[in-house]
Amino acid sequence: MENGVGAIDGPTNPMVTPLLTDLYQFTMAYAYWKAGKHQERAVFDLYFRKNPFGGEYTVFAGLEECIRFIANFRLREDEINFIRESLPGSCEDGFFDYLRGIDCSDVELYAIPEGSVVFPKIPLLRVEGPIAVVQLLETPFVNLINYASLVSTNAARHRNVAGQSKTLLEFGLRRAQGPDGGLSASKYCYIGGFDATSSYSYCSNMNMSLDEIIDKSLRRKDSSSTCEDFVSLVQAWLNKIQWSSSLRGIFGETNQSECKNHFKAVLEQVMRSGIPNFCAVALALRDLGYKAVGIRLDSGDLAYLSCEVRKFFSSIEKEFAVPEFGKMSITASNDLNEETIDALNKQGHEVDAFGIGTYLVTCYAQAALGVVFKLVEINNQPRIKLSEDVSKVSIPCKKRSYRLYGREGYPLVDIMTGENEPPPQVGERILCRHPFQESKRAYVVPQQVEELLRCYWSGNSDIIREPLPSLRDIRERCIQQLEQMRPDHMRRLNPTPYKVSVSGKLYEFIHFLWLNEAPVGELQ
Amino acid sequence: MENGVGAIDGPTNPMVTPLLTDLYQFTMAYAYWKAGKHQERAVFDLYFRKNPFGGEYTVFAGLEECIRFIANFRLREDEINFIRESLPGSCEDGFFDYLRGIDCSDVELYAIPEGSVVFPKIPLLRVEGPIAVVQLLETPFVNLINYASLVSTNAARHRNVAGQSKTLLEFGLRRAQGPDGGLSASKYCYIGGFDATSSYSYCSNMNMSLDEIIDKSLRRKDSSSTCEDFVSLVQAWLNKIQWSSSLRGIFGETNQSECKNHFKAVLEQVMRSGIPNFCAVALALRDLGYKAVGIRLDSGDLAYLSCEVRKFFSSIEKEFAVPEFGKMSITASNDLNEETIDALNKQGHEVDAFGIGTYLVTCYAQAALGVVFKLVEINNQPRIKLSEDVSKVSIPCKKRSYRLYGREGYPLVDIMTGENEPPPQVGERILCRHPFQESKRAYVVPQQVEELLRCYWSGNSDIIREPLPSLRDIRERCIQQLEQMRPDHMRRLNPTPYKVSVSGKLYEFIHFLWLNEAPVGELQ
Repeated sequence: MENGVGAIDGPTNPMVTPLLTDLYQFTMAYAYWKAGKHQERAVFDLYFRKNPFGGEYTVFAGLEECIRFIANFRLREDEINFIRESLPGSCEDGFFDYLRGIDCSDVELYAIPEGSVVFPKIPLLRVEGPIAVVQLLETPFVNLINYASLVSTNAARHRNVAGQSKTLLEFGLRRAQGPDGGLSASKYCYIGGFDATSSYSYCSNMNMSLDEIIDKSLRRKDSSSTCEDFVSLVQAWLNKIQWSSSLRGIFGETNQSECKNHFKAVLEQVMRSGIPNFCAVALALRDLGYKAVGIRLDSGDLAYLSCEVRKFFSSIEKEFAVPEFGKMSITASNDLNEETIDALNKQGHEVDAFGIGTYLVTCYAQAALGVVFKLVEINNQPRIKLSEDVSKVSIPCKKRSYRLYGREGYPLVDIMTGENEPPPQVGERILCRHPFQESKRAYVVPQQVEELLRCYWSGNSDIIREPLPSLRDIRERCIQQLEQMRPDHMRRLNPTPYKVSVSGKLYEFIHFLWLNEAPVGELQ
Repeated sequence: MENGVGAIDGPTNPMVTPLLTDLYQFTMAYAYWKAGKHQERAVFDLYFRKNPFGGEYTVFAGLEECIRFIANFRLREDEINFIRESLPGSCEDGFFDYLRGIDCSDVELYAIPEGSVVFPKIPLLRVEGPIAVVQLLETPFVNLINYASLVSTNAARHRNVAGQSKTLLEFGLRRAQGPDGGLSASKYCYIGGFDATSSYSYCSNMNMSLDEIIDKSLRRKDSSSTCEDFVSLVQAWLNKIQWSSSLRGIFGETNQSECKNHFKAVLEQVMRSGIPNFCAVALALRDLGYKAVGIRLDSGDLAYLSCEVRKFFSSIEKEFAVPEFGKMSITASNDLNEETIDALNKQGHEVDAFGIGTYLVTCYAQAALGVVFKLVEINNQPRIKLSEDVSKVSIPCKKRSYRLYGREGYPLVDIMTGENEPPPQVGERILCRHPFQESKRAYVVPQQVEELLRCYWSGNSDIIREPLPSLRDIRERCIQQLEQMRPDHMRRLNPTPYKVSVSGKLYEFIHFLWLNEAPVGELQ
């Protein structure tokens, strides 16, 4: 059992069990079993058809959870009983004996590494194994990858618009679609380039005022002495701030012609009370060796307010000769999303960190990614799923995929080939064809060739499998892959589609199969 | 401990623990503790500000999970260690001793029954207890109620447009936002009026054809005999169907001028092959005493196809004298939502059941409900949260809420009063005021008065608490409450807002507090 079942922890969420599926999958498994076909070796591809959020890229995530699931796939007796009760009474007992024995020791799973930038039609997973077993993996895999990839992509898009220098905080637990949505959102936003999840300062939200504080003592950070009345120290600083002529200038500076009445009141509240109070506390803390982190703006005109606050911090730095005070962190939140951050950038702002909640974790702009799981080969026979809608035709055969890089280091095109075709070679010209549109072809001379699918699960076979990388490594891969893309694929407005292709040989074979299987219409 | 902690199962999802929260909540709790204020008795209201999906009603769900959470609220030693590591090192040890001892035995929770139709601003929950403890309930409560209520409401809206006579199936597991989103969606869609979750027929999806079936025998349902070659029986029926002149009429009837080419191909495929095949199997099964359930249409023009299929079923019924065959169930799926079902209704269709996935469970039309949790009283002192945005001003005080019913049996208005005000009386005129708009007032003579908040958790106190109803009862309540609403509140286009009000006395008090607390601006 080396390299086998049991070496890997189970899914993070204990509710991810083989019963996390549609009953339909067990009905299918029964039908295969009843027909004596359950052991036939099938190959399924998992992929999506369209990049989300109107963009031209997707971040692949959720792989580790799939591996944790497959490594521990076993039906418990109570689960088998539940299935028995759910299926028609006419199902034969032998099927349940069969279910009792199944695991994923005969399954192989190949995947693109988690955190990679990926594109439509290219398989994210290729899963091989007994058809009845692999059928039972469809729903959990699709569930685990759909939201994970969607929210990682959403996080990456928010990072892209916010820029590398900003801190991005995920604030979405309250608004997530259930507890799991909240917890996995944190993980997958981190992969997509966020820095942290909600853990913010609390000063402005405290339901008490200074005079309510009972224990007023605070020990110096270096423990050398104790300030017996921290509250008075704060009060003293507040007085200094209020009597400073240079700061009073700032108080009075709210340009009335520039801002609307509604907004003016927020501005006044922030600049007259919130910010001076914060600065007084920060300065008093500093006297005792502590460093305040910063403030959060949660309403009003965030661009304008952040600039006013920055001016105030800088004035404090100058007035009281406090180095670095002007660089105090300003966090902004309040229903932020890609569009609002873009608008803030255009207006100019002094925000250091964005807290993003609802729009991030619920993927408000597009709440689902259409991941599908399609049979592409059975018993070494290719399968194609036809549809009137060309975008829904599946690409048959057990395939390999490669990413071809150009002279400038950018990925140029992804290409799928048949399993046994020779791989593309660096420096050798290769024909890349659009899988369905005859006239779309390009010759490519790759400067680098990266095979995309790697083995992450090999059951009891001898195939060496990739170790599961740490969360930090997945995030690193994601950031590095996003940076490597040609910028026009990544821009928000009218991004250029990244090319996804098949080899000439695979193209011919797809279209041979297609013509073979599609019925010829009759005109009357 | 009768009536106390431990009598209720934990949350359905084992990941729902006291750590399902923002770290900020523990920082707040520490601040209260440090200030010696952690035991102060606080009252919080949980409510939302706006009905989702452009509608004027919301279904309240998620209560049972909140009660399961609160009943088992305890911090484990490893959780306390995690909190200690996450908070600044300067936090005093005493705080962690305090955390070790807390539970919800001093907490009382009052709620509107789960499955009720509810409206903005009216508290769904009123939670009373030591402020530091109740603070720790905010994030999990908001998380548990936000999605549950949103998806129940979405389900109810789909039921409303589909009509009572249709079967509604939740098909969303693959597209849900994580495993929990999938599982809880099923539960909350059921509450909102759905009939079942995905478990559908599989004939058309089988990756094999008749001649691949090895074991061709099928025993009669009553076990009286066995048909040795079921496949031949099916084949015989298929021949009868194909040679029947009345059915051939249907084959040829595809009106070419009426439908586009693209669609025509789908129609041909369905009518020439899918439906006759299905009917042959159904008729063969019927010979052996089994009853086929029906078919599912998953592409093409669902309205037109369903009518064509119905005609075919009816013709089979007539041609072969098979009673009820015309009533065979037709299920439709394929990215359905409120709009597409509405469009199908307008076109006319013969669909008996709708399978709804992505748009239902991800709440695509609006991915989050803005549930908030606000302090309204502490140490018997009312608290108000002011905001420039009137819709964000909280309604202070520990309150009671009532639903007042009119002569025709419809709910007329919800009203909030101070805790100690006498309740509205049947037949007695009462003034209902808009909480913020001075001129909006109405006198109401209720024919029935329903107090909305009931005690669902009373900790160790003697207060009698409501039992948790079964899922079926919650669903019943929901359906009955939806039926009871005046239809103009429920319609999709320009629904009439349901009135939410406060008593005259509470109105005066809110505005007294507001004027008291809001800063007076200065004109220079």
